[in-house]
Amino acid sequence: MSKLDLEGVDRRGFLKTTGLGLGVAVGTLVFGPGIASAAEGSAAPVAEGAFPYVNLDPREGMLRGHAGYWKSGCAYGAFYAITSMLREKVGGPYTQVPYRMMAWGRGGGANWGTLCGALTGACAAINLAAADADVNKLVSELMGWYSTFSFPSTDATKMGVAGAFTQTAKAYPKIELIQTTSNSPLCHVSNATWIAASGIPLGDDRRKERCARLTADVVAKTISMLNDYKAGTFVPVFKMNEETETCLGCHEQHQEGKMSCTECHEPHEY
Amino acid sequence: MSKLDLEGVDRRGFLKTTGLGLGVAVGTLVFGPGIASAAEGSAAPVAEGAFPYVNLDPREGMLRGHAGYWKSGCAYGAFYAITSMLREKVGGPYTQVPYRMMAWGRGGGANWGTLCGALTGACAAINLAAADADVNKLVSELMGWYSTFSFPSTDATKMGVAGAFTQTAKAYPKIELIQTTSNSPLCHVSNATWIAASGIPLGDDRRKERCARLTADVVAKTISMLNDYKAGTFVPVFKMNEETETCLGCHEQHQEGKMSCTECHEPHEY
Repeated sequence: MSKLDLEGVDRRGFLKTTGLGLGVAVGTLVFGPGIASAAEGSAAPVAEGAFPYVNLDPREGMLRGHAGYWKSGCAYGAFYAITSMLREKVGGPYTQVPYRMMAWGRGGGANWGTLCGALTGACAAINLAAADADVNKLVSELMGWYSTFSFPSTDATKMGVAGAFTQTAKAYPKIELIQTTSNSPLCHVSNATWIAASGIPLGDDRRKERCARLTADVVAKTISMLNDYKAGTFVPVFKMNEETETCLGCHEQHQEGKMSCTECHEPHEY
Repeated sequence: MSKLDLEGVDRRGFLKTTGLGLGVAVGTLVFGPGIASAAEGSAAPVAEGAFPYVNLDPREGMLRGHAGYWKSGCAYGAFYAITSMLREKVGGPYTQVPYRMMAWGRGGGANWGTLCGALTGACAAINLAAADADVNKLVSELMGWYSTFSFPSTDATKMGVAGAFTQTAKAYPKIELIQTTSNSPLCHVSNATWIAASGIPLGDDRRKERCARLTADVVAKTISMLNDYKAGTFVPVFKMNEETETCLGCHEQHQEGKMSCTECHEPHEY
């Protein structure tokens, strides 16, 4: 039993008193027998609440998102971009969540083509920084924005053509790329739409550069939403299209989702 | 300058020497001025490698997955189930990754119906525990298994009917539930298929219980895969169906994904 235990302060109480339990971890310390055993064992669990958020620069986020894409894919890129900036500006709890944990989302989840990985990475970052009651609002808005946005943005194209993505270790095609709207948050639809319009195949570096710039765009949008959220000025604007709204008039309880129905289903008379 | 700095040990070196840098965080300590400044500032970043994994009990995982679903949804449930067990058995770095960070995946991502949230939560846990080179293999296998599995499993149904999910704070329907195979990892398809077969609507507690048991099943499968992976005996068995393989014979470079094509597209002559 440690000295502090003998003094009637258990480990949890000790951590609370010293502020060590407030979302800050403490490992096995080796400053001396007394203190070491006071804090030994596993680290105090991180608090289950939103991490602190401070305003971030969307353009810096674009650079990191792009670089992260070329390092380990879209989901890694988006998550790395946002959380690496928060590590630098906030530190604390962000430093203990590994960048790599969202890499699985690449290509819509191990290349299955489900949710766009840039969204997967960004949504996990949103969840870290936003309160439970607000996560759905922010994530839903991001999905809606994504579905109706023309990727890659003109800004990302300008940066790409100008060679501004200097953090990228690998060479990337410094060219203009066609823009498309996918009408869906799914990687499969997003890529298939762009590939059909551009005639550039999946394995081509230009297609990858398209997704690197898309990752940059998703990061910039996420940061801009989180900055607004932090300022208390975030207002969701996404609305389902009228067609989908009509479908859900009858089918709302027949399914889960806000994706456009006619992307997969034939419309029918009613 | 701290005492340790004066002795020629910088902060990084100090953390390395004491083992505090090995994936374990240290906050601003308040044991005294000397020690406080030795460890002050932001925590040493967690290592960007797989966290340690130890064998887990799939049945215990089912209980926690089910309970987590009823607390904060499918994605929370799956991620909580696996990482809470790893916190208890491994401790260390798992304690600093908040359970709540994957909650956004509920209902296929803020109820958008994209990737099943139980998969979203489980995949993030896989990514924490598996090496970079193996993440895609494990995640892809889980997606494939999910697409062809009949949910909820007979085991989960037995546990549900027997009232075995005792960790769940809320009451849940202790009834048999129809089983369906969704042929897709998407929440939308998974739910719509089950709702069509059961006649039970989305908002019904029985439908939610179906997803709670599905979460339990996804956790059990993930744990069983990770146990095999740890033992060096994991072998992926998922194969795309022949129809999809035929499609990809021509269309592989036209899209990203492994989902069944004819779920959304009409087959065509070639």
